[in-house]
Amino acid sequence: MKIVVLGATGLVGRAVAATLGPRHEVVRVSRSSAVRADLADPASLEALFAEPVDAVVCCAANVPLRPLAELTGEQVLDDLRGKLLGQVALARLAAERLPDGGSVTLTGGTFTEPLPGSGLGALVNAGLEGFVRSAAAELTRGLRINVVSPGWISETLEAMGEDGARGTPVAVVAEAYRALVEGDANGATVIPR
Amino acid sequence: MKIVVLGATGLVGRAVAATLGPRHEVVRVSRSSAVRADLADPASLEALFAEPVDAVVCCAANVPLRPLAELTGEQVLDDLRGKLLGQVALARLAAERLPDGGSVTLTGGTFTEPLPGSGLGALVNAGLEGFVRSAAAELTRGLRINVVSPGWISETLEAMGEDGARGTPVAVVAEAYRALVEGDANGATVIPR
Ligand SMILES: NC(=O)c1ccc[n+]([C@@H]2O[C@H](COP(=O)([O-])OP(=O)(O)OC[C@H]3O[C@@H](n4cnc5c(N)ncnc54)[C@H](OP(=O)(O)O)[C@@H]3O)[C@@H](O)[C@H]2O)c1
Ligand SMILES: NC(=O)c1ccc[n+]([C@@H]2O[C@H](COP(=O)([O-])OP(=O)(O)OC[C@H]3O[C@@H](n4cnc5c(N)ncnc54)[C@H](OP(=O)(O)O)[C@@H]3O)[C@@H](O)[C@H]2O)c1
Repeated sequence: MKIVVLGATGLVGRAVAATLGPRHEVVRVSRSSAVRADLADPASLEALFAEPVDAVVCCAANVPLRPLAELTGEQVLDDLRGKLLGQVALARLAAERLPDGGSVTLTGGTFTEPLPGSGLGALVNAGLEGFVRSAAAELTRGLRINVVSPGWISETLEAMGEDGARGTPVAVVAEAYRALVEGDANGATVIPR
Repeated sequence: MKIVVLGATGLVGRAVAATLGPRHEVVRVSRSSAVRADLADPASLEALFAEPVDAVVCCAANVPLRPLAELTGEQVLDDLRGKLLGQVALARLAAERLPDGGSVTLTGGTFTEPLPGSGLGALVNAGLEGFVRSAAAELTRGLRINVVSPGWISETLEAMGEDGARGTPVAVVAEAYRALVEGDANGATVIPR
């Protein structure tokens, strides 16, 4: 398959591209890659479908931690633009532009314990799970949509000076994406462990 | 307690106001009420806190059904403005402006089966549940935040010409709000049945 990996310069995206690489043609995309796209810029997402691709994997963008008191209108919109609105736009484009049997795999996240400032992040992660479940029922032509919702990733915990063993190794996370791309799940939320 | 009920002219809001009315001072609010506020207009929400209130209940606004193909950027923002962004704004204002021990109770919803066009609705409902769980952990001064997530309501099914027995009577739904306002739950999602 020809597979676009959005966020391919990031921790998760690098691992996903490495896992898919041996068996598929992977197009590595980010705001700073040679093939450039920005989740917050719909036209750049549309351009990803200019040449035929079989599957899209998105592990780009993050929602910043932000205390409740800072969630004013414009700030909220800005924080939602990339990971939430960008991935919804990607799902819509994928439904229109992928060939029969194509798939789109999004990224959420799982807060095992509520973290101060994680209100919007939790909104986006849970919201994407609800969205994917409903959008899946609407897809035609054998198209599929799923979301991977990792908890803390070991390598991220280690970079923060914490115990990586509390998290999931990024290679295990990447395997969850591969299984969704190559499998036949639709509407699923997968928490890699 | 003095309790603001936003959406008090709607099916759920009328029942909530009727259930709280005998024991509390209820301020009925909607875009068409004498005390006017619009979830999509932050200044109008702020004005609700001009006089002291002990609790806010929001059962206003809806997310329209909309096929995946129509989820373009501007449309998505518009659809998210009331029920999602408005309730997030209300939570932020409540955290700042309610007296110690005050509470805010939001409204989500539960799609027992995915309904065509319900992608954004499901995003909003699930997103609010995630948001409330995280935001609760951040509240101080004994403040509380919860969300009621009804499935189909009997009276709505009947108005659509369907079997009301498949749903939950609005009086049962209203009771869930009362229990959250008068109780001590924080961060909870309640599915009335
Ligand atoms: N790491 C964890 O512990 C963890 C846990 C749970 C969930 N997650 C989720 O997994 C996803 C990836 O996390 P990560 O740790 O791999 O993050 P990361 O290392 O910061 O990588 C983010 C990637 O996304 C790209 N990106 C950022 N904003 C973008 C935009 N607007 N448009 C296009 N590309 C954009 C970045 O490249 P450019 O900056 O060059 O565009 C980079 O390739 C995120 O959604 C994160 O919330 C991570
Ligand atoms: N009915 C069901 O079966 C069901 C099931 C699950 C979840 N829910 C949820 O429960 C909530 C209430 O539903 P409902 O059936 O009671 O709806 P409804 O009968 O349509 O009532 C909606 C109420 O919200 C007010 N409203 C609408 N937009 C507003 C805005 N932007 N700002 C302030 N007020 C606004 C309306 O009054 P004005 O137009 O005058 O402002 C009205 O009072 C919604 O979130 C809905 O999704 C309903």
